[in-house]
Amino acid sequence: MRLTQSRISYAAPFPSRKNDGMTTFPDSHTDLLDAQVGSLTTIGGDGFPQATAIWFLYDEGKIKISLNTSRLKTKNLLKRPKVSLMILDPKNPYRYLEVRGTVTATPDPDYAFAKKVGAKYGGADLSEHDGPGDSRLEVVLEPTNVYAVAMG
Amino acid sequence: MRLTQSRISYAAPFPSRKNDGMTTFPDSHTDLLDAQVGSLTTIGGDGFPQATAIWFLYDEGKIKISLNTSRLKTKNLLKRPKVSLMILDPKNPYRYLEVRGTVTATPDPDYAFAKKVGAKYGGADLSEHDGPGDSRLEVVLEPTNVYAVAMG
Repeated sequence: MRLTQSRISYAAPFPSRKNDGMTTFPDSHTDLLDAQVGSLTTIGGDGFPQATAIWFLYDEGKIKISLNTSRLKTKNLLKRPKVSLMILDPKNPYRYLEVRGTVTATPDPDYAFAKKVGAKYGGADLSEHDGPGDSRLEVVLEPTNVYAVAMG
Repeated sequence: MRLTQSRISYAAPFPSRKNDGMTTFPDSHTDLLDAQVGSLTTIGGDGFPQATAIWFLYDEGKIKISLNTSRLKTKNLLKRPKVSLMILDPKNPYRYLEVRGTVTATPDPDYAFAKKVGAKYGGADLSEHDGPGDSRLEVVLEPTNVYAVAMG
């Protein structure tokens, strides 16, 4: 995606953060709740933010994630439940949703929730790459701040 | 971008993190250093990660960012210089670079560095939306961990 001056006037960084302090998703950005990939940032034990691309499901008004308990991001968020999820518009990198919030995790022993997430992704089997002894959590993001950003 | 089962096998989250612990950018992902937008995560005073889309410049082997001193992200990183920058491939959300590192900031009083960044973006004038009394910093990211991720 090539930036042209006519399309965007630079506003360092990007000024039009709508709904600052809101905890709901504005109509202008609800399409992003159906996007394929989000960027989840947790905070590591070393104090560094750790960002990873994740699958997610928007379900019953909440953003939910299926996480394998053996992963570093999972360990991070169980210890430090303050996270940020950014969902970029794949067609326009100047349009995105950032959801900051706290997470609650509940066990998903029979993969019921993992299957629900898999259904969004063409029936993918999330257990396929889980190792022996791994288990899964259903992680629900409770927004404390929703930022809907759009430029140009 | 539609996910198809043939294109990707789910590996929760995404397993092929190359060069774990590396501090250089692998050849496989250097094209992303020329991408238009990155997602910079700082940590707020409230302990929440804060992610924003930013412009950046890959210059002399370093990722550099021009930041306005009045912005929250700038205040965050001056107090807590551990950050993460994620650069997603705009054509493939399953391919990205995550750079965790510390930042050093130096004043850019005459906007010399800001102009260098602007040149990447069609000659954009970064000062255009700076307020009176605002100033700019040249922020250099020193990687402590570079993760080059590719799926499918």
